[in-house]
Amino acid sequence: MRKILVIGIGAGNPDHLTVQAVKALQTVDVFFVLDKGSVKQELVDLRSSILEAHVTRPYRWVEGRDPDRDRNPADYVATIDAWRRARADVCLSLLSELGPDEVGAFLVWGDPSLYDSTLAILDDLLARGSEFSVEVIPGVTSVAALTAGHRVALNQVGKPVQITTGRRLAAGWPSDVDDVAVMLDAKYSFEGVDPDTWIYWGAYLGMPDEILISGRVGEVAAEIRSVREEARARKGWIMDTYLLRRDSPASP
Amino acid sequence: MRKILVIGIGAGNPDHLTVQAVKALQTVDVFFVLDKGSVKQELVDLRSSILEAHVTRPYRWVEGRDPDRDRNPADYVATIDAWRRARADVCLSLLSELGPDEVGAFLVWGDPSLYDSTLAILDDLLARGSEFSVEVIPGVTSVAALTAGHRVALNQVGKPVQITTGRRLAAGWPSDVDDVAVMLDAKYSFEGVDPDTWIYWGAYLGMPDEILISGRVGEVAAEIRSVREEARARKGWIMDTYLLRRDSPASP
Repeated sequence: MRKILVIGIGAGNPDHLTVQAVKALQTVDVFFVLDKGSVKQELVDLRSSILEAHVTRPYRWVEGRDPDRDRNPADYVATIDAWRRARADVCLSLLSELGPDEVGAFLVWGDPSLYDSTLAILDDLLARGSEFSVEVIPGVTSVAALTAGHRVALNQVGKPVQITTGRRLAAGWPSDVDDVAVMLDAKYSFEGVDPDTWIYWGAYLGMPDEILISGRVGEVAAEIRSVREEARARKGWIMDTYLLRRDSPASP
Repeated sequence: MRKILVIGIGAGNPDHLTVQAVKALQTVDVFFVLDKGSVKQELVDLRSSILEAHVTRPYRWVEGRDPDRDRNPADYVATIDAWRRARADVCLSLLSELGPDEVGAFLVWGDPSLYDSTLAILDDLLARGSEFSVEVIPGVTSVAALTAGHRVALNQVGKPVQITTGRRLAAGWPSDVDDVAVMLDAKYSFEGVDPDTWIYWGAYLGMPDEILISGRVGEVAAEIRSVREEARARKGWIMDTYLLRRDSPASP
């Protein structure tokens, strides 16, 4: 039976790879890649360098074109669903490159469980009748890389924490939590929260270009916006995330 | 200046260690250990085996007795605070074993940011005037190990997820989320949720004894309780966590 590994490779630092991931890489016959073009060439290169560093046996590299996605859809869930179906079609043709007893792999930034669609795509393919087994290798999330960079806990003592999207935060602070980690926010949704809220922001986490800014939103929001825009323009891409903490600590 | 590393070592599988953690281990002069006695000897042994596997230079191993903690306090936060202060006193004496330019390390299960008190203890010591720098090495969380074992995403498309404690869940389903990951639940709080809720439960995640059970709460809650009690009695300890999903998927 064909096997598909979904391997979390961490937030961008090649050393985020786990020993389990390194061992798994060594069993792979075909690496599948879904890319959006040349914009994030630096990330493509980073992934290639991970393989060069850790894989000594021969492997094949099969690339597909990731379908474009409307970033400002009227109906978010329906648009994502349609985009996922298109992506599944591309993946189906990728998987046709995998021989009967071969092992294929998708490399996923962070951990495959958090705001990544690879597992859902594979579920779609299985539901359509494709036959393969799936194994998931957990990885370091960008949220863990963020809190490590700032040397802060994600949760306060005995309290819950919510992980959400910029889109959701823009609709209002979630109920019942004082700590909110935000991913996928290209629109500075933190600018809308209480200015006394503490923010721990980070971009290119774990990478040589890592940027960390923390402080009260009212004091650092403008700095984060200008630093983020400058970095994004300079590099052509950005990956960033942040933690908002409502009960502010005595010191950062 | 003395340096303290806080190293996430993953959920229990020694292969969860990242390359970054392995490299960091090789720089450590003194490992600090806070243990609660002999009950979890298997975990102590597991940690020792990680050092044996990855550290070739000489190091010292300094153990402290972790103060006991009331597991059913009337005032949860105040009790935790008092326990943390007692723990900080123990840590202060541990840190006195560290020479001026030496590197010390705490090994933390999972990731240091999630329901772990090491960073708070070190903040306490810094506030009391101790001098050292802190570096955090992120690790694979038990939540990532759980979702990897079940091959499911933590969040639904575009939706938030809350990470909380059994104690909080027992007080009611949190607002504004359909997906809730629960840690530190010794009291089967999932038995109180809507029986149609999907549960993905796991114990000893990533270890040879890993146990995974999933299904609707109404159908698997009793099984989880009996399996958990049997495993805990047999091994003398248990580490488990689970994900609750309110919009149930078409298939597990």
